[in-house]
Amino acid sequence: MTAAAPFNKVLVVGVGLIGGSLALALRRAGLAPHLVGFDANPEALRQAIALGVIDEATSDWASACRGTSLVVLATPVRQIEQSFEQLAPHLQADTLITDVGSTKQNIIAAAKKHLHRHVERWVPGHPIAGLEKSGVQAASAELFKNRPVIITPLDTTAAWAQQRVAALWEACGATVSFLSPLAHDDIFATVSHLPHVLAFALMRQVQCSSNASELLSHAGTSFHDVTRIAQSSPEMWSEIFVANRELVLRRVTEFETQLELFRHILEANDSDTLLAFLGG
Amino acid sequence: MTAAAPFNKVLVVGVGLIGGSLALALRRAGLAPHLVGFDANPEALRQAIALGVIDEATSDWASACRGTSLVVLATPVRQIEQSFEQLAPHLQADTLITDVGSTKQNIIAAAKKHLHRHVERWVPGHPIAGLEKSGVQAASAELFKNRPVIITPLDTTAAWAQQRVAALWEACGATVSFLSPLAHDDIFATVSHLPHVLAFALMRQVQCSSNASELLSHAGTSFHDVTRIAQSSPEMWSEIFVANRELVLRRVTEFETQLELFRHILEANDSDTLLAFLGG
Repeated sequence: MTAAAPFNKVLVVGVGLIGGSLALALRRAGLAPHLVGFDANPEALRQAIALGVIDEATSDWASACRGTSLVVLATPVRQIEQSFEQLAPHLQADTLITDVGSTKQNIIAAAKKHLHRHVERWVPGHPIAGLEKSGVQAASAELFKNRPVIITPLDTTAAWAQQRVAALWEACGATVSFLSPLAHDDIFATVSHLPHVLAFALMRQVQCSSNASELLSHAGTSFHDVTRIAQSSPEMWSEIFVANRELVLRRVTEFETQLELFRHILEANDSDTLLAFLGG
Repeated sequence: MTAAAPFNKVLVVGVGLIGGSLALALRRAGLAPHLVGFDANPEALRQAIALGVIDEATSDWASACRGTSLVVLATPVRQIEQSFEQLAPHLQADTLITDVGSTKQNIIAAAKKHLHRHVERWVPGHPIAGLEKSGVQAASAELFKNRPVIITPLDTTAAWAQQRVAALWEACGATVSFLSPLAHDDIFATVSHLPHVLAFALMRQVQCSSNASELLSHAGTSFHDVTRIAQSSPEMWSEIFVANRELVLRRVTEFETQLELFRHILEANDSDTLLAFLGG
């Protein structure tokens, strides 16, 4: 673990749950004496100032980038490409850049297209701190404490940049590990994206039922545990599914095979094979 | 709510998590001055006595039933039919009988076959207190506190018997409601059995992957929430799926339709329809 040196000015693009929480955590760690927020939504910026999450709000890329030592891109996945494009002309030659996107290969493609020579100082990252909540009002300096952060460097990412980004996350209490971008997207297709597909689909099945309210009135812990994540933002998740489309489809197809196998076993009333399917 | 009068002798058949917890809760409510346990597993009986869950263990149906005012059948679903058969010849004409099985239509068929004239004093019940734990060592007098209990009476179930069983559950802190046996099995196929199928299938998919341990090392809250119930007993769940086979298969097929719809939407890269599918 490298000790983290403070950044003299930090720009957070997208002041929502994750961007806001990182701002609070960086400030508490003493790493961000001056925090600037940039957001397409003026109300988010107003709230972020009122909550003490940022010191200054801006809608001007040039002033936002001037003298900035760290830029954190924390917008929804679909806006990241546009942020790269608008940010690139104003970046200083020594500014460190990172992001918090849940999918990496698509973001890397966008960064290669727009960041040009700055791409070597951009460190793709993914804090695993998904919550059903969203918005800066839910931000907390504790959000990343003991949570994993995955860094997915490119072959060309500067070693010093990787180390600084790893150190800033560790200063926020997170546990950092490294994966290739493909391995990241493939692993999270299975352990995060697919469970969300199942939760959303189960919730949709119940809500489409003619007796939906009766069903929900009898839903207990098992149903609520499985569908809790279906309360997550549909906007955010539709973007993630599209961004990681190919790998998500592969895992959904794999799950369909498992479910079909279960159905055949139960149709055949084959108790021994059923028990084995369930891990018994 | 009817005030519950004490039972002079209570027989619990199947001294596991549910049977043991009900014994503890009945005793604490002052309803069971003498508790007798019957179990195919002598070790469970030994533990139940050591833990103070029961006062007496027996493996003899005749003595178990003598002077007994309440019999609770809390064996696994597949053993209930046998219990009815062995119990019936020894039942007194005033003994109240109930069970805690998770499926009702199959148990009702077994009761009609074996309980004969005693069937009118048998009240089918289902406490919704599923846990991943099992065994009498996990039993707790608190297990049913604020948890639902569904009673699924037959047309022929005596009103006084229904009232006494409802009152005993309420004395244990549970909230009692009534459903027809078919409505019960249909509702729980959707809100309980199907979520378990999905959790078991997802866990199997991961465990069958060549990189299973890497996947599990990156699994976060969303994966653990969805698969928590896959830690439940495979034996218990294979019995439940078989017992409620037809309705479980119907709900699995319905879920397959939802998943196929999701897959088609994502294959078509149709963002608007995807957002609508996710409830946005």
